[in-house]
Amino acid sequence: MAEPRFFVPDANADQRIVPLPRDEAIHLTRVLRLRPDARVRVFDGRGSEWTARVVTAGRGDVSVELLEAVVPVREPAVAVTLAIGLLKGDQMDAVVRDATMLGASVIVPTRTAHVTVSSRAGRSGEPIDRWRRIAVASAKQCGRAVVPDIAAIRDVGELLAHAVPGDTWMCVEPRAAAGALDTGVLGAPRPAAALVLAGPEGGWAPEELALARARGVHAVHLGPRTLRAESAPLVALSALWTAWGW
Amino acid sequence: MAEPRFFVPDANADQRIVPLPRDEAIHLTRVLRLRPDARVRVFDGRGSEWTARVVTAGRGDVSVELLEAVVPVREPAVAVTLAIGLLKGDQMDAVVRDATMLGASVIVPTRTAHVTVSSRAGRSGEPIDRWRRIAVASAKQCGRAVVPDIAAIRDVGELLAHAVPGDTWMCVEPRAAAGALDTGVLGAPRPAAALVLAGPEGGWAPEELALARARGVHAVHLGPRTLRAESAPLVALSALWTAWGW
Repeated sequence: MAEPRFFVPDANADQRIVPLPRDEAIHLTRVLRLRPDARVRVFDGRGSEWTARVVTAGRGDVSVELLEAVVPVREPAVAVTLAIGLLKGDQMDAVVRDATMLGASVIVPTRTAHVTVSSRAGRSGEPIDRWRRIAVASAKQCGRAVVPDIAAIRDVGELLAHAVPGDTWMCVEPRAAAGALDTGVLGAPRPAAALVLAGPEGGWAPEELALARARGVHAVHLGPRTLRAESAPLVALSALWTAWGW
Repeated sequence: MAEPRFFVPDANADQRIVPLPRDEAIHLTRVLRLRPDARVRVFDGRGSEWTARVVTAGRGDVSVELLEAVVPVREPAVAVTLAIGLLKGDQMDAVVRDATMLGASVIVPTRTAHVTVSSRAGRSGEPIDRWRRIAVASAKQCGRAVVPDIAAIRDVGELLAHAVPGDTWMCVEPRAAAGALDTGVLGAPRPAAALVLAGPEGGWAPEELALARARGVHAVHLGPRTLRAESAPLVALSALWTAWGW
């Protein structure tokens, strides 16, 4: 996969020549300095990917010709939604980047009792746009043809109220009375979809844990050491795929 | 574990009053601004931990009284050595931090064919000292009483020459013909010790892969997406503990 990959949400099989979105056009011309006839790949973020050829490569005005549909990188067998308690800017960026690379289907930035970042975050929609761009960049790098959906910020109570009992895992502190997220907990049958909740830096409030247990959510720990809040999602997703198949 | 933890490699049960190393003393007085009588924890980096009381807290001159030995955070059942191809400064820092948090016993910075960072790195011993400080900081944060050993930089060929067939895993690109690092590959019996090799950004050279296979090393991938070089160790360790028990 040596060819550089570009995200073109409007690409579809009925069109031969497609324009690149502005960010992608800039990446192609100014960063990679590609010229007409260069071979690239194009993906639509929903699982389709093509080989393509650069047709025009002007400043911010790039179009490519779709050549052949290719078999995209396989998506996981389980559609995992990751709900992550809001973290500081760069930590949240890392979670979005890593969860995209680890195959999450949906990422839900989540407001919880112990979230410490300003609650203004997300009001304007600005951080959501930023996280979407990060998810696109990560999909480009890791070879994924699907860009996970970055949902609007939600409250953990609302998520738990709709959690499917048995198919929801809440990552908790090692001290909490809970089983490990291991092959035992993750035994068959593998669900079609799952929700994983990972807390903010301060962890979960007692009432959030109680609500989760009342809803039939599996409270699970990821080993006896205290994980950094921005690492826990990566560890949890790795554990899931180890048990369910990569 | 609300009490701040300090690394005192010379602490031992025969001594009642122990001085803190200079870095730790500065952390206690200038960052945390603790005073005499404050309750803290002390660990020796080899698995012993105590509750302690600050006795003197002068500038860079701190001593504590060891009170009671406590049960330290449990170490993994398998002693995993992580050999990691040399990465750029901040990426290498992240690997050392994360591998400490994920329970690695030994970290071996490794020179491989595709390593791109200056080969001067490690000649002076300076980066090794830096990685040791990062491992200490990570152990303090994650609650671990053991600080993994940061070995001297070695060549991957030398490591592979001594690899134990069957108990060594080499993380490879998704394209390579290899099985996944999942519960199948990691089936019983669980070894007492294991070696995990993760490559630099450019991955492994064909001759390195061939040597690994000749030595009976398991070549394994971590899913169909291309992982960032600094994330692969964290993903691999998470997979191991999921299968072997956290």
